[in-house]
Amino acid sequence: MIKYPNFKFDITHTDPKSGARLGRLQTPHGTIETPNYIFCGTKAAIKGLSPDQVREAKTDIILANTYHLMLQPGADLIERMGGLHKFMGWDGPMLTDSGGFQVFSLGEGTMANEIKGKNLGKYENKSLMGITEEGCVFKSYVDGSKIKLTPESATSIQQQLGADLFMQFDECTPYHVDKDYTARSMEMSMRWGDRCLAEFERRHNGTQAMYGIIQGGVHADLRKISAEYTASRDFFGTAVGGCLGGTDEEMETVVAASLPYADPSRPVHFLGIGQLKDVFRFVRFGVDTFDCVIPTRLARHGTAFMQGVKGETINIKNARFRHDDTPLDDRNTGVPASCNYSKAYIHHLFKAGEILGMQILAQHNIATINRLMREVRAAIKSGTLDELQREWLPE
Amino acid sequence: MIKYPNFKFDITHTDPKSGARLGRLQTPHGTIETPNYIFCGTKAAIKGLSPDQVREAKTDIILANTYHLMLQPGADLIERMGGLHKFMGWDGPMLTDSGGFQVFSLGEGTMANEIKGKNLGKYENKSLMGITEEGCVFKSYVDGSKIKLTPESATSIQQQLGADLFMQFDECTPYHVDKDYTARSMEMSMRWGDRCLAEFERRHNGTQAMYGIIQGGVHADLRKISAEYTASRDFFGTAVGGCLGGTDEEMETVVAASLPYADPSRPVHFLGIGQLKDVFRFVRFGVDTFDCVIPTRLARHGTAFMQGVKGETINIKNARFRHDDTPLDDRNTGVPASCNYSKAYIHHLFKAGEILGMQILAQHNIATINRLMREVRAAIKSGTLDELQREWLPE
Repeated sequence: MIKYPNFKFDITHTDPKSGARLGRLQTPHGTIETPNYIFCGTKAAIKGLSPDQVREAKTDIILANTYHLMLQPGADLIERMGGLHKFMGWDGPMLTDSGGFQVFSLGEGTMANEIKGKNLGKYENKSLMGITEEGCVFKSYVDGSKIKLTPESATSIQQQLGADLFMQFDECTPYHVDKDYTARSMEMSMRWGDRCLAEFERRHNGTQAMYGIIQGGVHADLRKISAEYTASRDFFGTAVGGCLGGTDEEMETVVAASLPYADPSRPVHFLGIGQLKDVFRFVRFGVDTFDCVIPTRLARHGTAFMQGVKGETINIKNARFRHDDTPLDDRNTGVPASCNYSKAYIHHLFKAGEILGMQILAQHNIATINRLMREVRAAIKSGTLDELQREWLPE
Repeated sequence: MIKYPNFKFDITHTDPKSGARLGRLQTPHGTIETPNYIFCGTKAAIKGLSPDQVREAKTDIILANTYHLMLQPGADLIERMGGLHKFMGWDGPMLTDSGGFQVFSLGEGTMANEIKGKNLGKYENKSLMGITEEGCVFKSYVDGSKIKLTPESATSIQQQLGADLFMQFDECTPYHVDKDYTARSMEMSMRWGDRCLAEFERRHNGTQAMYGIIQGGVHADLRKISAEYTASRDFFGTAVGGCLGGTDEEMETVVAASLPYADPSRPVHFLGIGQLKDVFRFVRFGVDTFDCVIPTRLARHGTAFMQGVKGETINIKNARFRHDDTPLDDRNTGVPASCNYSKAYIHHLFKAGEILGMQILAQHNIATINRLMREVRAAIKSGTLDELQREWLPE
């Protein structure tokens, strides 16, 4: 049996009304309160922000992507540099994914649509060169070389990277495939999960903890099998992955079919999902952590998360902000991006093509989500999640 | 006579050996020690850095460009937003140029070559539509509209922007023109200088101070006339502008022909010149402030200023930095960019296309130049400028 002596997850409160829970997730690099949000530092950097600025936005935990880092600069180099924490200057809790999602998605953002069921036609993955029981082979986007990723290598690479939390290697099944394919893929991911655990155990020194991933596409019976599998193995946490359906309702059905069969004492991470509405929706199912690239991706397009506006965001490039001398959002107390610049100035920076504009929005978006998560935790405690949701997301 | 009650320039020491001088330049937004370096926030932003990060690099003074700001977002808007200091969140001393340099240069960087005499062929300025005694007409790079800039409008726009220090409007004469053209242009710039002063006086409220600009191309007799002109008028400071020749030696000849005829009690600014070697070379002629876009421009290309290396810089993209776990330069005490990241990490950021790489180098380059200026001031005081130069710029 694998032990995680330096990790702990305590559920401190469950709100009978919403079903949401509060927890404390302890890692060797610190303890975070849950529900919480994990910000994407894909290539060992939160896009446009220094680690100081990420902290200034009151961030508790970040993640990096194995797929990108194994190609550039390579796991050997990061290990030699003392691991990811030291390499990128982040001393708080950190997670890495297994690389599986990117391998099976490859094309920019295509798989994100797959997951949300938006690609109904044939899905063609041009860099993926083959999937077998052993693992998969793909073409590096950096230099075109042929690279093999297996449950064993995905595990040992993540051990080299050294993040606190990490993911088993799995096949992220697309939306358009039939149930048979999804079932066979899920079963292989389960076997891959066992191989990840075996490899993990070989070099396990107590500094890292692994999550199993629930697959099974949009099929409730498969999700149940996969969830029960994760619960039966020595994973520290449970992640919900793979194709989640085409609508908010389908996504909800998938989660509802998965989590009741997961180990309720383990932390639950929802992979790649993290709009504001998703947070409110899925904490009610017991999701403890979220991650998504949108806080920094939206920032690059001039979009700022904003409490209480329709659609969750404003676009600072809109002409109505040209003369707006108010700060972005001074509810984000102490966050320079949200408090120190006028909307007119940030509007100008985007018009002028100054990258400082996206840097400001990146910090603001992260700070806003961190404030959301703090308020969500307080509302779970006081049983006022519905009220909070109405404040953040007006109909 | 124009008075500058809130401004003062005191020469506190002159080094008999090097000829360099130390001064204190007082403005309504603070006092700076000279020699000093003014960093370019062309479009009301230091490229890639927040005002906090600029301060963290120990910056004393910055500048913004009238030409860019009059086109986007417009001087009216900046005035309505409370002026440039408030608009961009910089509460220290600030300078604006008159827009003349950009109008007469237009194409990206072309004029910079002209100034340094690198364009020996015909110089074609496609956006400049005409120069007359009244002023000039050019095409906006933002929307193609026809825009007139005159000594009066360049002055009143700078009054709207509200920087502490500002420049008269002048024609920045190119290198390839003959002496007759240069002489006629210089004479017109002198008449324009008088019109700038007249316009300045109309709304002068004590919060701003104007510099006259010495023109005259590479011709010593013209430089003398132009320098004597600036000294004879109520400018607060003196700037050296225009074509400075093709080599370091020609540039030195131009400065040597100009400054002896300028008012020795006024601060001297050297427009657009600011490699490390230029600082060492021209403080000896009595230059008090420098400005140049290179600290942030070089950063965008992976180039970092570095004390004691040949050619002043290293390029972090060079393969030799791939495994280098030392910080960029911990002599820049307290500057995160210089102290907190390994060269290997910054190398990786450039390889991976992460903009954090250039943000780090931008802060490092600014911090390095600020340290250089502090050390130059100390060396002027102790009469050890030659020794310091050898430390920074090995043969």
